[in-house]
This record gives sequence, structure tokens and C-alpha cells, in this order.
Amino acid sequence: MDHQPRNPDFEARVRGSFARQNAMGLIGARMTRVEPGRVEIELPVREDLGQQHGFVHGGIVGMIADSAGGYAAFTLMPADASVLTVEYKVNMLAPAEGEWLIARGEVLKPGRTLSVVRADVWARRGDRETRVAAMQQTLMVMHGTPDERI
Amino acid sequence: MDHQPRNPDFEARVRGSFARQNAMGLIGARMTRVEPGRVEIELPVREDLGQQHGFVHGGIVGMIADSAGGYAAFTLMPADASVLTVEYKVNMLAPAEGEWLIARGEVLKPGRTLSVVRADVWARRGDRETRVAAMQQTLMVMHGTPDERI
Amino acid sequence: MDHQPRNPDFEARVRGSFARQNAMGLIGARMTRVEPGRVEIELPVREDLGQQHGFVHGGIVGMIADSAGGYAAFTLMPADASVLTVEYKVNMLAPAEGEWLIARGEVLKPGRTLSVVRADVWARRGDRETRVAAMQQTLMVMHGTPDERI
Amino acid sequence: MDHQPRNPDFEARVRGSFARQNAMGLIGARMTRVEPGRVEIELPVREDLGQQHGFVHGGIVGMIADSAGGYAAFTLMPADASVLTVEYKVNMLAPAEGEWLIARGEVLKPGRTLSVVRADVWARRGDRETRVAAMQQTLMVMHGTPDERI
Repeated sequence: MDHQPRNPDFEARVRGSFARQNAMGLIGARMTRVEPGRVEIELPVREDLGQQHGFVHGGIVGMIADSAGGYAAFTLMPADASVLTVEYKVNMLAPAEGEWLIARGEVLKPGRTLSVVRADVWARRGDRETRVAAMQQTLMVMHGTPDERI
Repeated sequence: MDHQPRNPDFEARVRGSFARQNAMGLIGARMTRVEPGRVEIELPVREDLGQQHGFVHGGIVGMIADSAGGYAAFTLMPADASVLTVEYKVNMLAPAEGEWLIARGEVLKPGRTLSVVRADVWARRGDRETRVAAMQQTLMVMHGTPDERI
Repeated sequence: MDHQPRNPDFEARVRGSFARQNAMGLIGARMTRVEPGRVEIELPVREDLGQQHGFVHGGIVGMIADSAGGYAAFTLMPADASVLTVEYKVNMLAPAEGEWLIARGEVLKPGRTLSVVRADVWARRGDRETRVAAMQQTLMVMHGTPDERI
Repeated sequence: MDHQPRNPDFEARVRGSFARQNAMGLIGARMTRVEPGRVEIELPVREDLGQQHGFVHGGIVGMIADSAGGYAAFTLMPADASVLTVEYKVNMLAPAEGEWLIARGEVLKPGRTLSVVRADVWARRGDRETRVAAMQQTLMVMHGTPDERI
């Protein structure tokens, strides 16, 4: 599906907002692709992100899915708005192991008040990608509260 | 609801498994209460856990809810089993700000193969607690794969 | 939790709206309790509500949970508003069999724009009740669109 | 994604099971397409399926999504197994109105014990289709309990 951004500066705004998310810095996540209605976040796998069996913690997998999905929705919001996660639901499909995790968010339905997004997380080892999580998420448009000033 | 643990050593096993979750160490989460069917995890709020508006990142809120819920289910599992998150769904109810976050997980339905759990996250400022997130989660019992050896 | 309704006529309004839901008539559901933030719906089990194994269809279980939850949120909304389901997530805990199903919705967080609700469904056989489903749901307040006129 | 069915008679089995779901008969739903990992269910819109505003009840939308998703998973299960809905989460995207609703389920991850599926519901008016709901669902494989005999 092709989406039309309402803010021509959407990419700079999305990347600026992501840069202010300290939690993404803590885990080492990086924003790679930013397109209208689509955002990709990469996470190099590190030992300190693990759960008890050595795979990446499911909560961390949920974190990058939440961010990729939220920012995918944010690409389509007007310049005077900010974005808020209402809820998300994530299924774990396979152990999150490999060299990188990649979360890809895509807007299903952009709305005036609410947007609905899907985001999947893939684990990459060499050339091979395995889907490790599938998320569905609801976001709220906060009109009149620019992201920088909330 | 009162639950009967099938493993008398459930508390040591749960605390041992939590101690092996590097990701919980990274964010500074601590396991406080462990009872049959109930687990509580506390997280001191830090600046490096924030999202773009300075509140704790929703993904981090989801992380401690996921852990509290998963370990609540694990308290009721047999000694030769480990626990796996199948999926969780979390609603954000209020900005996660304050001095502490506290995630409280409680088993709704323990099962032979699947368990269903609810976990809420509260933000504490002084004496006051506000519910900031509500989660519902499905966990899987992995029979014959002790937590330490997977 | 005690809730204060903003519309003193909330009960009449909720019951009137429920009476206009043809689908509830089709399956034979009845609204029993209506209190601020809480609604109960009963469904006599019938053979034509079954799935392939003779239990009540999971979708029908979801239907009465959705209605009980939505109307629980509606009890707390202002007189000039109507209610819309944003999303719901339901876990099936046990086969839905017995003489009656009872869905009980309770508001977790009433909001100006969004409300979050939990609803559980119980199956009753004689004096015994078993929880057969657990739901968590997000509802939207539609200001300025009275329920009767939308 | 292409899926390989483990039971060559999957189509007959799926259609037979659907025919035993009385609740699908009550609402007038019909199974149209059955392919490995994909199932489509159509529902002619009728007045007795409505909610208070005359659109199709969200619970009915959830019902056909649940069935399309569950049977999509069932197409890939072995001959001696039956299928059980563990949980589903559905977002309502637009009012369910028009002449027909069409639910399309597609398997994301078939598993030995659990399968994860997405299903969307579309409303058709004339030649035009609008997505009205998006679902994500977890199903359980019940080995050794053939669908006909449970």
C-alpha cells in the first residue's frame, strides 16, 4: 500500500524523535529505513540483551517492534502532532538469536485519531532471515502536541 | 485465587532463572516478591530508560510485565520444565513516570501445556501508585527442558 | 474500584442501546447487571451456537465479552457520546459448555478519548462456575454522536 | 509463502469441520476458498447481525475472522489432529457495512504445537473492498484427537 505523508519533513522528524529515545541507545538499536508508512530498526545482538537461555529477551524484541511500528505511524502524522502507543500484541515465533534483529513496521490503517500498524521482527544470521516475532499495534495521534515539546 | 506449586523449590528456581536474564540486569530490574502464581518485579526509573518525551519507554514497561507474568506462570510449573512466552498484549494506561515501576504478574489459568497470566505495571511516586499498563499473556510449559540447561 | 458515572441516566441508555443490537437478539443474549463501570451479559447455551465439537463457538464467546466490555465502558461516558470498539484480545481458557455463559465486563481505566476494560466469560452448570475466557479491550469515546442517532 | 499440507485430504476435512459449526450456519457464513495455509469465509450482511448503529456487530466480525484463521491453520495439521483457538486479537478499522464481509486467514507460522495466523476482514460493496478488521491469532494443534470424534 502506498501512503502519502502529510508532513514533507517526516523523515527528519522521525529520525530526530528516535534519537531522543534513550532506551533505544541503551540497547544499541539503530533506525535504518524511514519511508511513508514504513520504518525499519536494527539491533545488533549482544550478550547483555539476553534472557535466561541466552536468546534475546522477548521484552527487547517487543521494544524494537513497538518502536518500528510507532514510528511507521508517525511518518504519516501532521507536523503539529506526536504519537503515543495505545497497545500492542506480539507473538514470539522462534528464538531470537543470530547476529542482528530487524524490526519492520508498516501502517495498515492511518487514522485521524488512531492508527493500526503491523510490525514483524526478523533475526539475521549471515544471509538468512527468520521471522521471530509478529506484532499488531494501535497508536494515537496527539494533535497540537509537537513531539519535541511534550 | 490460591495456587499449589508442583515444585517445592519454586522460589529458588524462579530467582535463579531471573538472575540469568542479562536484559533485566541491563535495565536495573529486581525481583521482589515470589509466591505461588504471583511475582513482582521492581524497576528504579532511570534517564537512560526513557522514550522521546522522558517517560519510561513503553517497550521497557512491556519487558518487566512480560518477565513478571512469565515468572508468575513458572512458579507453578514442574521441576523438569522451563517457560516460554507465546504472546503478550499490553495496554498503556498512563505515562510511566515516577521513582519506581512495579510489575505484578498473577496466573489466571495454569495449564499442562499453556498458562494464561495477567500483569499490571504501576508507577510509584512517594506513597502514591498509578496503574500505567495492563497486560494479558500466554505462556508455554516446555516439559523435559529444565531452565538451566536449555 | 468505584466509578462515578457522568450521565445519571446511564443505565437506561445502556439498556436501550443493547436492545438495539440485533446480533445479541439473534444469539439470545440478555443484559442482566448494569452498574457504573460494570456490565453483565448472560447467554443461555443453545445447540445452534456451537462449533464443530459442540461447545459454544469461540467467536460467540468473544461476542458477549466484547458487548459486556463495551457497555461497561459506556456506563461512564457522557450523555452526548457513543462507544466504539477499537480492539479486543481474548484468551480461551476452557471449553464453553454448561447451561449458561456469563460475561462480566469491568472498566480498568476510563478515559476522555479511550477506555480500557477487562471482561471474563464464565460457564455455569448448576451451582458451579468455570472461567472459560479472559478478554482485554480498548474502547473509543465518540463525543457529539449520541448512540441513538449515529 | 507456500505451505505444504501434511494431510492430502485437508480440503475435505476442513470443509467437513466447518459444516459442523452450527454457529456459522446461524449467522449465514459460507466457506469459499480452502488452500494450504489459506481459508476464506464469506458472510452476506443481514439486518439481524447488526449492532446498535446498524453495522455488523464487531463480535460477528471477530467470529468469521476467528473461523477463517483457525481453519487456515487446520489445513496444515496432520490427519489425526484437531485445532483449538488459544487466543485472538482483533482491531476494528472501519464500520462493517456493505453487501458482503469476507474474512481471509493466512498462516504466518505453522508449528508442531502452536500455529500463528493473521486474518483480515473486508467489506464488499459492488466492486469495492474495504478492510474493516485485522486479526492476529494463536492456535493449538491437538494431536491424537481427530476433529470428528472429540
